[in-house]
Amino acid sequence: MRRLIMGLAIELLLMAGSGAGHAFAQAPPTTAAPLIIETQGSFFVGGRERASATLGQAGMAAGTITVDQVYVRYQTPPGASARPNIVLIHGCCLTGKTWETTPDGRMGWDEYFVRRGFSTYVLDQAWRGRSAADPSAINAVASGSQPIATLPPVFSASHEFAWVIFRFGPKYGETYPGLKFPMSATGELWKQMVVDSAFGLPTPNPTVPALSELTGRIGPSILISHSQSGIYPFQVVAANRRNIVGVISIEPAACPKATADMTPYKTTPILVLFGDNAVDSPFWRSIVKDCRAYIAALQAAGGRAKMIVLPEIGVTGNSHMLMQDLNNREIADLLVDWIDKVNPSAAN
Amino acid sequence: MRRLIMGLAIELLLMAGSGAGHAFAQAPPTTAAPLIIETQGSFFVGGRERASATLGQAGMAAGTITVDQVYVRYQTPPGASARPNIVLIHGCCLTGKTWETTPDGRMGWDEYFVRRGFSTYVLDQAWRGRSAADPSAINAVASGSQPIATLPPVFSASHEFAWVIFRFGPKYGETYPGLKFPMSATGELWKQMVVDSAFGLPTPNPTVPALSELTGRIGPSILISHSQSGIYPFQVVAANRRNIVGVISIEPAACPKATADMTPYKTTPILVLFGDNAVDSPFWRSIVKDCRAYIAALQAAGGRAKMIVLPEIGVTGNSHMLMQDLNNREIADLLVDWIDKVNPSAAN
Repeated sequence: MRRLIMGLAIELLLMAGSGAGHAFAQAPPTTAAPLIIETQGSFFVGGRERASATLGQAGMAAGTITVDQVYVRYQTPPGASARPNIVLIHGCCLTGKTWETTPDGRMGWDEYFVRRGFSTYVLDQAWRGRSAADPSAINAVASGSQPIATLPPVFSASHEFAWVIFRFGPKYGETYPGLKFPMSATGELWKQMVVDSAFGLPTPNPTVPALSELTGRIGPSILISHSQSGIYPFQVVAANRRNIVGVISIEPAACPKATADMTPYKTTPILVLFGDNAVDSPFWRSIVKDCRAYIAALQAAGGRAKMIVLPEIGVTGNSHMLMQDLNNREIADLLVDWIDKVNPSAAN
Repeated sequence: MRRLIMGLAIELLLMAGSGAGHAFAQAPPTTAAPLIIETQGSFFVGGRERASATLGQAGMAAGTITVDQVYVRYQTPPGASARPNIVLIHGCCLTGKTWETTPDGRMGWDEYFVRRGFSTYVLDQAWRGRSAADPSAINAVASGSQPIATLPPVFSASHEFAWVIFRFGPKYGETYPGLKFPMSATGELWKQMVVDSAFGLPTPNPTVPALSELTGRIGPSILISHSQSGIYPFQVVAANRRNIVGVISIEPAACPKATADMTPYKTTPILVLFGDNAVDSPFWRSIVKDCRAYIAALQAAGGRAKMIVLPEIGVTGNSHMLMQDLNNREIADLLVDWIDKVNPSAAN
């Protein structure tokens, strides 16, 4: 009886949410409605054991720790199994928080994609956030066993630096006209920024093999990267494209070179996306140009690749932090349209 | 019409979940059933701006960052507004992951309390996980502007050290008989452990005022702390007990002193909980004794305090990581019974 009532209730909720029997996929959802989660949870992928003599705290400094693992949190709505998973990979100096509630308190993409019917996975890059760093190199200098020059690079982006790189304006304190970032809430964005150890990590970043492990485990997936992590999905695809049914690289800090062998990228649908004011930005313009050249080369080689620079399709005012901009749902809907186009059998 | 269907569906789901019209509160929930979330999201409390000249990366080293903020993620089930919020505060060398999916893949308390009808808030302590640390002191040494002795303490707990402190056994590799921790999954627990900067932070830890800000914002709350954070709720209560309708300190690394003025603690319901093998543990036995003395002094002063050492009430085999032990739901149910007893008007 309980099972029957539950089944009926879920059917009704799905009707209420989408106006149809399918999991919120046809139309953008009513985001004020309660959210039904079939399963949720968190786990790690990757990781290796590492013996150290400099873990800190006298008397507890020697032993084994585990590093290079990647924290992943996920939510699955009812009916998601027919669609690819979405994996959200944040950028420099940030964590998975990037994709959650926006600085001004609106729904993040982590929930919006669930409401659009996708199992959604949010990770913290290796050595960042809930994915452990290794303190050994710092403590080795503190204890005198290693020289100062061996201190690892640890970087926090200042408000002033991030303002320009995130393209809120050409200079700190100046704002581009028509900007769609919620500028009254920049103080909350700055709280999202954490210490970044990536500059001291090998290439590929340990996050890359961890992503291969993740997609091996969860099945067909769309990798959505941002900024610093923009290159990671390409590295994942080049290593093993099994289960990668699409790559969306949002404002990547780098694309593969246009002169590279296109063979590894040819069969995977790829979308590179930039916001507004990028083509004229001293920091971004050469990256946009390089990405255009890569996408053109990939298209010429028969790849399923696309490049979108938002103002060129009439969508203006987007910053580097597209997923937090005031039109973030419109951007997410644009991505879902692309996903449904390149995975037509899975589209509801 | 959509609203009507939605309302009906939720009513039915609540019936299916609890056998009554109330939000999963009467009986432990069917955890296999889909979860209904009324609202969820994440935000920060606390935080201060800090100018630095040593943020790392040449050319980007000078500027302002925000530190001391505390990351909070929450989920609210339908009907939770009548009950206190639950705030889960992790311990040393860990993050909010502590309370999520267990190392062997079972449901964590973060979801279980939601299924029992509580708005549940999970945080990362200041300077840990998604709550930013400050790299300035490390980079000041790297750049030669400060001496090596100013390197801040950064600590990772080794597997070997944690094994004993978490009371899996008296020595690394040895296991207490009847232990209820999922020992086949220790490898997944080790992945949860991160670098801990708390030894270099002031007292009270910045997490403490952030908790006051949090409860000021979210309303009546039960603070559930663990291990290193065990003392924090007492510090919160001593500073301002408004909105703190209960404190549950699980295996605290310290209780307030029995000789302290009991006035600040007298009106707040307080429960201190320990697992098995603590009273004989070289590390824990004096802490258990001190906590017993504190609770006795508080009771003598008219406080609403209780101490539970689980084997003394017939519940055996629990490690320090009670929230991940095989009987973690039984322990959570015990806490809910206590919460409903000390907040009878809110109990469903």
